Amino acid sequence: MSDPARPPLSGTPRTRLRRGREKGRSRREDLLDVLAAGFVCHLGVVVEGAPMVVPTVYGYDDTSLYLHGSVASRSLAGPPETVCVTVTVLDGIVLARSVFEHSVNYRSAVIYGRPRDVTDIGEKIAALRLLTEHVAPGQWDYARQPDRRELAATRLWALSLDEASVKVRSGPPDDADSADAVPGRWAGELPVLTRFGAPVPDPALPAGTPVPPHVARRESTRPGRA
Amino acid sequence: MSDPARPPLSGTPRTRLRRGREKGRSRREDLLDVLAAGFVCHLGVVVEGAPMVVPTVYGYDDTSLYLHGSVASRSLAGPPETVCVTVTVLDGIVLARSVFEHSVNYRSAVIYGRPRDVTDIGEKIAALRLLTEHVAPGQWDYARQPDRRELAATRLWALSLDEASVKVRSGPPDDADSADAVPGRWAGELPVLTRFGAPVPDPALPAGTPVPPHVARRESTRPGRA
Repeated sequence: MSDPARPPLSGTPRTRLRRGREKGRSRREDLLDVLAAGFVCHLGVVVEGAPMVVPTVYGYDDTSLYLHGSVASRSLAGPPETVCVTVTVLDGIVLARSVFEHSVNYRSAVIYGRPRDVTDIGEKIAALRLLTEHVAPGQWDYARQPDRRELAATRLWALSLDEASVKVRSGPPDDADSADAVPGRWAGELPVLTRFGAPVPDPALPAGTPVPPHVARRESTRPGRA
Repeated sequence: MSDPARPPLSGTPRTRLRRGREKGRSRREDLLDVLAAGFVCHLGVVVEGAPMVVPTVYGYDDTSLYLHGSVASRSLAGPPETVCVTVTVLDGIVLARSVFEHSVNYRSAVIYGRPRDVTDIGEKIAALRLLTEHVAPGQWDYARQPDRRELAATRLWALSLDEASVKVRSGPPDDADSADAVPGRWAGELPVLTRFGAPVPDPALPAGTPVPPHVARRESTRPGRA
């Protein structure tokens, strides 16, 4: 049963998968899982007829993705008619028996829509908090929060999650039943692991400044909530 | 001195950095370093006036980036007038004293151009080899190489590296000299480490099939040549 507060993703001509449909996912939970596992997205906009793709961090809730940037930024000027935001989480390289069947294991989400420029101060602060807490949990309350001047210098976009598609590939290569599966030829997956390393203190810190627990505990964990 | 075979990156209005210029790099070697360290790029195209951003693997040499896909793919139809390819390598999360100064350490490259559809069989095979050997070194000679039918089903694009920009951020946060640098408040970098895990054999393999050395030696190494 679908949760009425979390409707399934709407299929439009541009989010309906033409290729690799077996990799498609259509529940909103699948989209939220990908957003939870990543923390950098690639924002696509059209500038003077040409595509422009920039990496940026994001935050999200059940209904919207939040992007921020400088008010002076070209990629966040507008907001334009339509943007495309893609989040890709790499899980492994698929080593098949034939070069042609080589692939990548991944989880990806593509979201289309017209972003809404968030100008209400309360909503802006709430969205910046979501964004900060997704990338760096605990930092919103630990660091100094944005002041009036900083809020004014920050552009914030909300993008509805309604028009989105999700694709997932996992598991072994697809050519186990082919003539290329000859005895002695290995095939499988080489997993890609993303983990946080040990925190590196700013050299300018007074000696002995302790690493706060909310930072220290992230060492060796993977990014995201998943 | 600039190597005549590796001219510096050309600045055009869209690759000239407007913001964060101190992060800019202009040598071709800087671009090649980013391409070496990544293995998935985000390809931006304009489809019916809207941006479309898709993740895909790539190969490259000193002068071109190579992308491949199915001839049935929407993102590689055309080729269009202009594409934008962005490669982003994440190195860490920058934890500053203020939320506003939080950042990400990264290396990114943005390449613009009109892709050339590679149809010459010899050039296509050479480019597919570069691509395969970048993502999965050693597999071109280990796996079964593409046959005529597979080559015909594969679209291959070459994109000149001439119009590109490179941005790099590294090191500690920028607010060590601010009023937010109060005693006891920690600041620094949380590094993001990407490594290959232990190879996972295809469950369909005959028991005891050995992992070839070119795959086994990648465990615990980072992706890319760097």
